[in-house]
Amino acid sequence: MRALTVKPGRQDCLDVRELPDPSPADGELLVRGLAIGVCGTDREITGGHYGKAPLGRDWLILGHESLGRVERAPSGSGFSTGDLVAGVVRRPDPVPCGACARQEFDMCRNGRYTERGIKELDGFGAQAWCVEPDYAVRLEPHLASVGVLMEPTSVVAKAWEQVDRVGGRSWFEPRRALVTGAGPIGLLAALLGVQRGLEVHVLDRVSDGPKPSLVRDLGAAYHTDDAERVIDDVCPDVIVEATGASTLVFASLTGTASYGVVCLTGVSPAGRRITADAGTINREMVLQNDAVVGSVNANQRHFRQAAAALARADRSWLERLITRRVPLERAAEALESRPDDVKVVIDLEG
Amino acid sequence: MRALTVKPGRQDCLDVRELPDPSPADGELLVRGLAIGVCGTDREITGGHYGKAPLGRDWLILGHESLGRVERAPSGSGFSTGDLVAGVVRRPDPVPCGACARQEFDMCRNGRYTERGIKELDGFGAQAWCVEPDYAVRLEPHLASVGVLMEPTSVVAKAWEQVDRVGGRSWFEPRRALVTGAGPIGLLAALLGVQRGLEVHVLDRVSDGPKPSLVRDLGAAYHTDDAERVIDDVCPDVIVEATGASTLVFASLTGTASYGVVCLTGVSPAGRRITADAGTINREMVLQNDAVVGSVNANQRHFRQAAAALARADRSWLERLITRRVPLERAAEALESRPDDVKVVIDLEG
Repeated sequence: MRALTVKPGRQDCLDVRELPDPSPADGELLVRGLAIGVCGTDREITGGHYGKAPLGRDWLILGHESLGRVERAPSGSGFSTGDLVAGVVRRPDPVPCGACARQEFDMCRNGRYTERGIKELDGFGAQAWCVEPDYAVRLEPHLASVGVLMEPTSVVAKAWEQVDRVGGRSWFEPRRALVTGAGPIGLLAALLGVQRGLEVHVLDRVSDGPKPSLVRDLGAAYHTDDAERVIDDVCPDVIVEATGASTLVFASLTGTASYGVVCLTGVSPAGRRITADAGTINREMVLQNDAVVGSVNANQRHFRQAAAALARADRSWLERLITRRVPLERAAEALESRPDDVKVVIDLEG
Repeated sequence: MRALTVKPGRQDCLDVRELPDPSPADGELLVRGLAIGVCGTDREITGGHYGKAPLGRDWLILGHESLGRVERAPSGSGFSTGDLVAGVVRRPDPVPCGACARQEFDMCRNGRYTERGIKELDGFGAQAWCVEPDYAVRLEPHLASVGVLMEPTSVVAKAWEQVDRVGGRSWFEPRRALVTGAGPIGLLAALLGVQRGLEVHVLDRVSDGPKPSLVRDLGAAYHTDDAERVIDDVCPDVIVEATGASTLVFASLTGTASYGVVCLTGVSPAGRRITADAGTINREMVLQNDAVVGSVNANQRHFRQAAAALARADRSWLERLITRRVPLERAAEALESRPDDVKVVIDLEG
């Protein structure tokens, strides 16, 4: 089989190479890889800034946003040949923390988890891969063209669950949500917000390209004005922050309605020093009983929620999120950022 | 009766005046006022910066940290003559928001609540006051000397409940808590932390006066080193921030262990601009699934939790929190801040 590999810690080591087909361990599914999605984490890995190879070698199969079709499933696994599946990314340490022991390894406390395509486990960027049935989630058969959106959708499903759980500490019936950033995470957060019956607003910098119409076609409002003004005007009950931009993060903290919930999902580099009115941030958070929660990764429950959300969505809208499809042999092109990209996908077939 | 009054919006209008005894409305308790506690909100009111008189007049009876003894209780009220009681501060608007309709007026969304001694309702700084039985909470009879700590303890009980509910969104078994600030709220937060079985650390600036020994006598650790270093060393699962100081608030956001919960309780003035590494704050909150929640006020449930916490505590320790007792006639002295003050109380009897 052909696979997309990297050497973590080294720049520009992306390679498409021929590897032996994998052999499923006892109970595992053998899956034909259909596609992987590319995100910022993949760029950090190919840039040499992140990632770790499996023990005993210096290379890693890339890809954590997966889609595949089951080729062989052990009886009793709950899967059948032909099933469309995505693989869950994170695995707990053999000596799990309290969260991992409860299958909430997205909330791992000791940092000793592994991650497929990122940290010590081969990813899904290969024409064949294996997966434990517990870590495979089935998609509706009509989602073959968009199922590669499962992993980012699972991240967004977790973010909304965090909003619900933090908001649920008292009466919580939010009406208006603001999503900051119209990348894949922001757009999928807007989709799930609309699916929950919320009035959704999306804030981004660009006024051309595919984003404005993607937002409007959800029935949501698209804003490009000054962030503080938009937040003030919308006065959202919930903000899903999906940029990591420092000024937006801080503006979110004071901009919600009373009892506002902000969910931070964007990973920013350290060292972005800005000046802010810490007095007002603290005062408003206290007097309004506001909350802010960071959210990363996703567990099986969120992948199942993602499968349900994608099944409910308009498939042609989801197809428009995938703005470029690149064949495996030209994978390097997929790692380049281009202005009108939303989600870029590497096709593993053919 | 004698009562302590102010004219909200005007400076230095504190007055002890003779007023007619109040007449309880149908179903209300008549209570003999024993003491009120003084806090920063009272100083904001007497300074002319906060508070609102009841409709139709320009003065307000001060006092929201109450303790009294029931003088007359209607049959069926659940109270008896001689009961030690504290009054809940906040009342919902006649047209309640969703939270107020569920008795969670501490989480009021529309801001149309009223507050005894603060906003449109007379306070408890009088030798007699009335209260609806639903808004009175009974204390154990042995707490006459310290029951005036009920209101700040209720605020702390709410803060810990917020920590539990936000932490409870996944597996949460915190071990180490840091309390920043050793004023009444910080010390009571430390007490309730110790009662929950946590390893408690308290950070304050002063190294003399009553605070260090009050903390150590709880079995907690007292720190006066640089805040960032203390937070780093302790690596707490929970921070209860009780200063409102900008640098501490921001240091709290990055200083917790993974899945840390920070509860902000200190009210700071707007306009405290500081420079901070917003990139790191956001990055750590996201990658560690951290949460921050603001907490203000308290409802009946928290007053009942406070009564239970005070009943469990060492009474002589609680008595040491009350560092000055001033008779009603010299109330103005109680409003002055003195270096070794923890909680200052105005005695209403005699």
